[in-house]
Amino acid sequence: MDALPSLEQLNAADASTFLDHLGEVFEHAPWVAAAVVGQRPFASADALHRAMLAAVAARPEDARVALFNGHPELAGTAARLGQMTADSVREQGGLALGALSAEDGARWDALNTAYRARFGFPFILCIKRHTRISALAAFEARLAGDLRTELANTLAEIGRITRLRLAGRIAGHGLDGLHGSLAVQVLDSQRGRPAECLRVALHDADGALLAQGVQQGDGRTAPLLAGAPLRMGRYELRLHLGEHQRRQGGADGWLDVVPIAFAIDAPEADYRLTLTVAPWAYSVACAREG
Amino acid sequence: MDALPSLEQLNAADASTFLDHLGEVFEHAPWVAAAVVGQRPFASADALHRAMLAAVAARPEDARVALFNGHPELAGTAARLGQMTADSVREQGGLALGALSAEDGARWDALNTAYRARFGFPFILCIKRHTRISALAAFEARLAGDLRTELANTLAEIGRITRLRLAGRIAGHGLDGLHGSLAVQVLDSQRGRPAECLRVALHDADGALLAQGVQQGDGRTAPLLAGAPLRMGRYELRLHLGEHQRRQGGADGWLDVVPIAFAIDAPEADYRLTLTVAPWAYSVACAREG
Amino acid sequence: MDALPSLEQLNAADASTFLDHLGEVFEHAPWVAAAVVGQRPFASADALHRAMLAAVAARPEDARVALFNGHPELAGTAARLGQMTADSVREQGGLALGALSAEDGARWDALNTAYRARFGFPFILCIKRHTRISALAAFEARLAGDLRTELANTLAEIGRITRLRLAGRIAGHGLDGLHGSLAVQVLDSQRGRPAECLRVALHDADGALLAQGVQQGDGRTAPLLAGAPLRMGRYELRLHLGEHQRRQGGADGWLDVVPIAFAIDAPEADYRLTLTVAPWAYSVACAREG
Amino acid sequence: MDALPSLEQLNAADASTFLDHLGEVFEHAPWVAAAVVGQRPFASADALHRAMLAAVAARPEDARVALFNGHPELAGTAARLGQMTADSVREQGGLALGALSAEDGARWDALNTAYRARFGFPFILCIKRHTRISALAAFEARLAGDLRTELANTLAEIGRITRLRLAGRIAGHGLDGLHGSLAVQVLDSQRGRPAECLRVALHDADGALLAQGVQQGDGRTAPLLAGAPLRMGRYELRLHLGEHQRRQGGADGWLDVVPIAFAIDAPEADYRLTLTVAPWAYSVACAREG
Repeated sequence: MDALPSLEQLNAADASTFLDHLGEVFEHAPWVAAAVVGQRPFASADALHRAMLAAVAARPEDARVALFNGHPELAGTAARLGQMTADSVREQGGLALGALSAEDGARWDALNTAYRARFGFPFILCIKRHTRISALAAFEARLAGDLRTELANTLAEIGRITRLRLAGRIAGHGLDGLHGSLAVQVLDSQRGRPAECLRVALHDADGALLAQGVQQGDGRTAPLLAGAPLRMGRYELRLHLGEHQRRQGGADGWLDVVPIAFAIDAPEADYRLTLTVAPWAYSVACAREG
Repeated sequence: MDALPSLEQLNAADASTFLDHLGEVFEHAPWVAAAVVGQRPFASADALHRAMLAAVAARPEDARVALFNGHPELAGTAARLGQMTADSVREQGGLALGALSAEDGARWDALNTAYRARFGFPFILCIKRHTRISALAAFEARLAGDLRTELANTLAEIGRITRLRLAGRIAGHGLDGLHGSLAVQVLDSQRGRPAECLRVALHDADGALLAQGVQQGDGRTAPLLAGAPLRMGRYELRLHLGEHQRRQGGADGWLDVVPIAFAIDAPEADYRLTLTVAPWAYSVACAREG
Repeated sequence: MDALPSLEQLNAADASTFLDHLGEVFEHAPWVAAAVVGQRPFASADALHRAMLAAVAARPEDARVALFNGHPELAGTAARLGQMTADSVREQGGLALGALSAEDGARWDALNTAYRARFGFPFILCIKRHTRISALAAFEARLAGDLRTELANTLAEIGRITRLRLAGRIAGHGLDGLHGSLAVQVLDSQRGRPAECLRVALHDADGALLAQGVQQGDGRTAPLLAGAPLRMGRYELRLHLGEHQRRQGGADGWLDVVPIAFAIDAPEADYRLTLTVAPWAYSVACAREG
Repeated sequence: MDALPSLEQLNAADASTFLDHLGEVFEHAPWVAAAVVGQRPFASADALHRAMLAAVAARPEDARVALFNGHPELAGTAARLGQMTADSVREQGGLALGALSAEDGARWDALNTAYRARFGFPFILCIKRHTRISALAAFEARLAGDLRTELANTLAEIGRITRLRLAGRIAGHGLDGLHGSLAVQVLDSQRGRPAECLRVALHDADGALLAQGVQQGDGRTAPLLAGAPLRMGRYELRLHLGEHQRRQGGADGWLDVVPIAFAIDAPEADYRLTLTVAPWAYSVACAREG
């Protein structure tokens, strides 16, 4: 990360350095960076991003649609043929969209075809905020919309995508709206203490392990997810209570692994789960902020 | 109770016995019983009560107001001079309205005077459903109403009063709407059992003890209140958890007497409180039915 | 059930009817019924069962071992060749021990062989109190014991098996110790009411549906399991909260199906789960009685 | 606070300044400061305090008892006659021991007399860690002890007293073991958010208000008590839930002010209460650290 230029450095750099560094923020559209290079210096990464989006919004509809058409289809032929930008490869890779089953691949293909036929440009989604299930649900919902709405939705998604790309290219960017976190604290109501050394694991809807942590003495686990938007979808948190109670010498055996199934639908919010555990009872509460 | 006549016996009795027995159900208005004696037999105590109310409702407004005027004022001069029927004495006695402080007595007198001046009859309330505080609140609210509303409210309250009086005069009456209960169950989440032998005490808003019980092995206390309407108002339940935990040898001392303050505003409902206790945590939930 | 004879009828029946009816209570050992037929009348089914067990206990060890040898192996060759009594077929069928995979079948065969080699009689277990996992765990634990302990364990298990068989042959048997139940109540802490019409489903450790119920207005579900010993093992209760909240118009979507994973290790106990649900929190408590 | 000298300044000061500043840390015993002035510089306030205690411990028993005798009785004649050091006045004033009722004053006098008669020195207690009730309980318990134990207990209490006095005389002292805090967080389980703007008040066992706070958007109240040892004793926290719910438009009125009664028995610990509230349920859990 420390090799990244700061905003000050980008403000002071010569134009070609600036364009080299930010040319791919908008997919296959270096003209967006070129449109703002003369507006430097920018007071913040946020101001730079707003200027880039304004440059896009100022173009006529056909130019915007051409920009849209520079984007690869999600899980589409470009992905399979290796024609995407490195950013797109990384973003789509997060959902393993390149490794779909034949059946799921056919479904995505059908949706991609239908969407392009209806609107004249590919379906664009900031995929870092999605799981495969929520991405499909969003796809189906947006396919049913009208052109005006989809022009706006697509621009909004490109705004989210490019904001994240910009954050990855500027040291200490200070961009708002990129957070999102999931933290857990567990209280042991038999001992009146944080449940120290209790293992907490986060799984996705398919049961795959996403993250795990061990509760510290101050009643807090380092957040299981943090520093980036959360992917919308369903999760299962697993509290390894039985092994904790056996270690404490107080297991009754009624509870072992405690599953807590929940949905995240606000990628930029901070989800804080507070759990209280006793040998024969437990409680779960969620406070969501932001 | 077993000395009371059944409905069948009242249906079969001669008229004078019937009138002797039910003449005071409506305060100073034996004509109400007389109006229905010829309609016997009644299929249920409920049918009898409906017939009596219908006899009242059939009379012109001035006759109804005369009936209202047969009622004593709440906490009024009649109460102090001992001119009330035995039923009224018992009912008002439940709130100790005869033993008000000089200040409170003056407040009731002022309200009684204002109400009678405004509507031409005394303020009537089914006092068995009230605490002193809720009775005062109801008084002030109704004083602000209009005559038509108060004629209806007064008849409704007389319906409630006479329903309870009838229930007290007929064995196995089967009248609906006279229940109301408060029950408590306590789970010990450290042991996974009902918290046996835990003492639970119910106090009124002034701290006076109203009822207490000890939780049985099946997780249930005999209801603390049952078989009659609950008095609207605020209560405090006190869970004697410390002595329970000391008896079990597991007291940490953080909790001793656990106070639970709540309001009852539906006199005929069944309130069921479920409490879960651990050395360093507890929870309270109320389910209200009916 | 009404075609079954009562204890009075069995007391009064001629000896051959009694023996026909109860001869198979002890597996391949009609002599046990024969040993007690002359002791009639029995004051209770319990007294009858005690007399039968006493007749067995009175025999020398080799006769008891011969009785043990009349029992089929669990998941053994007799099961596959169809040589078991109808009772054993039914009992083993409850765990689908006849339909084991080749690998699991081999494991059971190895245990059966080892146990018989070590003790000289087959492994006997009251299988109606077990899941496949708990049966295997019990098998491995008992294989490590000594002969004296296993003679006692085996007789105790035969006592449990024959008690259940007797209960199935006598109308209104009144036998103690055959209960065991699992009940659930759910409180809606947003509305202060039992969570009416909420669907609650019980699954085994493999996810198979065992029972389901819908919570009634009085805050109680008919017990999900009742009237027979519970099978020891792990279970998952699933609270279909999302559909309940959508029906009430108040879904926030954070919770949908709430899984509650727990173990049962006391087959004859009554497990009562109390759940409290709100849009963003829930709690689970278990009280076990008996 | 910023007018206080730092440890570095005290290390560098001339001896008379050092003695002027720290001479009264040990009640009427400037010789303790004098005994350590030559050991400067001290690496930490903790090292300074250890050196002062070591100087006391090094003296023979009669010198230590003479030191003890320099302390005023709690709630005793010295207090009433105004002969205590300013520090003692402040410390005792925290419990309003100067304003006892005649009856309570007599009880303290009797205890003071009995204690001095038994041990030959006054009862000494670090009163900043006590409420009147816990101070009395400690008094009665220690009166029953033996001399050796009381010599040790008294020195330990003087250690606590002087540690606090030292902390009040050195800027940025960094002394361990002087903390102690009580913090509260409240989760709204209907909205899935911290219960913002909820008023939380802390009262002592007599109902007097000690502290109050309003929960912030991040789910935290500034600690109600912090930065000093907590007084041992019983407290009542009052959650003003009714006004919060009315402000949110969702009051059902079952709960209004929620009382939470608890004891603090570890003055230097951090007590963190986590409360979950819904219209018809609430839960309370305490985690104590340190």
